[in-house]
Amino acid sequence: MNKSIFIKTLYRNEQDYLNKEVQISGWIRTLRASNAFGFIEVNDGTFFKNIQVVFEQNLENFKEISKLPISSSITVVGKLVATPEAKQPFEIQAKQIILEGMSDSDFPLQKKRHTFEYLRTISHLRPRSNAFSAVFRVRSVAAYAIHKFFQERNFVYVNTPLITGSDTEGAGEMFRVTTLDMTNPPKTENGNIDYSQDFFGKESNLTVSGQLNGEAFALAFRNIYTFGPTFRAENSNTTRHAAEFWMVEPELAFADLSDYMDCAEDMLKYVIQYVMDECPEEMEFFNSFIDKGLLERLNHVVNSEFKRISYTEAVELLQKCDKPFEYKVEWGADLQTEHERYLTEEIFKKPVFVTDYPKDIKAFYMRMNEDNKTVAAADCLVPGIGEIIGGSQREERLANLEARIAELGLKKEDYWWYLELRKYGETKHAGYGLGFERLIMYITGMSNIRDVIPFPRTTGLCDF
Amino acid sequence: MNKSIFIKTLYRNEQDYLNKEVQISGWIRTLRASNAFGFIEVNDGTFFKNIQVVFEQNLENFKEISKLPISSSITVVGKLVATPEAKQPFEIQAKQIILEGMSDSDFPLQKKRHTFEYLRTISHLRPRSNAFSAVFRVRSVAAYAIHKFFQERNFVYVNTPLITGSDTEGAGEMFRVTTLDMTNPPKTENGNIDYSQDFFGKESNLTVSGQLNGEAFALAFRNIYTFGPTFRAENSNTTRHAAEFWMVEPELAFADLSDYMDCAEDMLKYVIQYVMDECPEEMEFFNSFIDKGLLERLNHVVNSEFKRISYTEAVELLQKCDKPFEYKVEWGADLQTEHERYLTEEIFKKPVFVTDYPKDIKAFYMRMNEDNKTVAAADCLVPGIGEIIGGSQREERLANLEARIAELGLKKEDYWWYLELRKYGETKHAGYGLGFERLIMYITGMSNIRDVIPFPRTTGLCDF
Repeated sequence: MNKSIFIKTLYRNEQDYLNKEVQISGWIRTLRASNAFGFIEVNDGTFFKNIQVVFEQNLENFKEISKLPISSSITVVGKLVATPEAKQPFEIQAKQIILEGMSDSDFPLQKKRHTFEYLRTISHLRPRSNAFSAVFRVRSVAAYAIHKFFQERNFVYVNTPLITGSDTEGAGEMFRVTTLDMTNPPKTENGNIDYSQDFFGKESNLTVSGQLNGEAFALAFRNIYTFGPTFRAENSNTTRHAAEFWMVEPELAFADLSDYMDCAEDMLKYVIQYVMDECPEEMEFFNSFIDKGLLERLNHVVNSEFKRISYTEAVELLQKCDKPFEYKVEWGADLQTEHERYLTEEIFKKPVFVTDYPKDIKAFYMRMNEDNKTVAAADCLVPGIGEIIGGSQREERLANLEARIAELGLKKEDYWWYLELRKYGETKHAGYGLGFERLIMYITGMSNIRDVIPFPRTTGLCDF
Repeated sequence: MNKSIFIKTLYRNEQDYLNKEVQISGWIRTLRASNAFGFIEVNDGTFFKNIQVVFEQNLENFKEISKLPISSSITVVGKLVATPEAKQPFEIQAKQIILEGMSDSDFPLQKKRHTFEYLRTISHLRPRSNAFSAVFRVRSVAAYAIHKFFQERNFVYVNTPLITGSDTEGAGEMFRVTTLDMTNPPKTENGNIDYSQDFFGKESNLTVSGQLNGEAFALAFRNIYTFGPTFRAENSNTTRHAAEFWMVEPELAFADLSDYMDCAEDMLKYVIQYVMDECPEEMEFFNSFIDKGLLERLNHVVNSEFKRISYTEAVELLQKCDKPFEYKVEWGADLQTEHERYLTEEIFKKPVFVTDYPKDIKAFYMRMNEDNKTVAAADCLVPGIGEIIGGSQREERLANLEARIAELGLKKEDYWWYLELRKYGETKHAGYGLGFERLIMYITGMSNIRDVIPFPRTTGLCDF
């Protein structure tokens, strides 16, 4: 049985352990030794910082330990002593060091700095570097903060399906899921693939959104949220797109657009604050080495009251300003990232919800406004990246929804159950989607989505 | 903005609201009215129980309200008053009832009982029934308990990839993921499908387990857990198999088989206790209407010290007993559910870990024991269903692992990064897998996996 204490516990509860014997286990980050003594920086992954271990030649295996390559794993027994003169608060004076696993000397993560691009090729080892150790610990804590936020507010967590029989949200290109023999698939009389012989008895794909299913649950549990993977088969090789990513999709019944905005604003602030509270060392690291203005920006978000303006007002403001945009601002066209960032960074200098977009640039399920030109949608824009959340009030009026489905040439049969939600006790409701990786990029300052996903999947890449 | 309070809040904090005006929103479960007054049972999904609303003919819309079909959604404003003579603790005397959405009168969930089978055909509406409202609220609370358990113990939550380029765990049939044109796929010179032109540039599938990726992270963060969807393309139409289900896969570094068992035992007890504490009304319902012995069984699990015996001992015990099993018990063969249940229900009358299985019936990555015949695996068996958790200590010795891979005819290249984890500071480590739906079935007493998944995917079925 392993009695090694977490290094995090020593840092967080120093007073309980000082001048006592402790046991820790971890991987060697650095080691330097003379003939008489040596220092090892050990990291066990529970904490951002290493712990320093001092060992002397009275150790039985002094010679062996002195020569260990970095990344070797060891267990150390010794006394925790304060080091008031040194940079670190304490160190362990080793009484015993047990070698758990000797590393080959060609461990790829030597002390010199590597490019993130190179580190992606060793995704199985990169979490042992400072940056990725911090990123993935923050990712974990942020995920928990999301659950905590919603559970404390009585939202029901729903696992919406990943494999779906229809592209009902129409949000993008989909991956086909099949067990048919690709070389020799069964065909129908007229030469088409006979999907009735496929695993699910029909064409099936990986989902692009759990929203429609989420709505069904909101109309039973009032407030729900999803938090799971979604997929896009888009051939776009950017720093912000992955083929597989995690989404948070809350849905609130008896709620309108402003209720969604209240909820999303509270959630963003809660998650950012929670991460700053729980991971101060990681956040300090990101602020120093990844993105200098990070903490200031995040603190500003947490302490701002988010602005709310309509799309129409936003367009007017952007047209009035003298900034030379690459894309022209015109009522009816979607806002580009440059416009979004200008609004949140220059005009309002804080997060902004832009509301009531033209219906033609938004999805069929969004609630039509009185003007019959705009829908009750709202995107949340934050300084640094632009849009981070998109949401809307949903069209709950059966006749309107049917009309909109017909207008867009969609097939009513494909939405039979979604339409039935409007038949049996419909109520106004609203919801939104948060791309989890986008949030992690925002919180850490990491600029490539591949660097906030443990094993990223992008065009041409599904290694590990 | 919606001011309706959660019905759960009224039940949990009754004293704060009695004799005050409250506002609630929800769906009508039952309604009966005379010419002078009426009663409505309203449920808002935040709580298992309904709240009773009394309304009288002084209501402006008394007639309209009196005739509302069930499942219509309403908002009620009125005084919360204690009802010491009645079954329910309080009711709302309505001052105002606002109709949110009138239901069609053919709402399929009328008061009479429906079969679970029928309810699956209306998966979008079944969460409005008592049973499924309870199941999915418990599922949500149990999911949170899992996160809470691991986060409080400093485990890092890892999102392992869903789309994978290899079937490295070999755990079962996989779904192919592709964007190729199935009717006319690109072929290589020798007539095979040219997967280099597929989205990821090679064959790709949906994962059957995140374990191998999880190990990479455990060897950086010490303790990690996954909690995400996994897939099996098995054509098995049973009550315990789904094509898409959620797994929890914790992995502990510097840990051996007994550490895994300690962790798994603690986790099971924690989650069960948490659900019993947070969802007493739901658990009471399951105990009364789904599975009579449920609460007794769960309380017994929470209060038992789990037994640990070796597979070899288990086989001897089963051979000695006079129970006529359908399958013969023989050393070297896997235990069947009937054997597992006999061990846990009849012999030990509490949960049992069976350890050290013959290597030939277990996976390649499990750690070889000294006897060279068995591996350091352990399955956790619980009364009522048999196996609920499977786990093992992992083979951390590079030479042993390579030998085992060769012995089983697997390709070393496919495991290059998994093998490298053994090169760079390997340490003993162990982990396990918990099928989340199996756990929910165990906690609720529901006997079909299709009834604990919001929108189940099984052979021939991916509706909604």
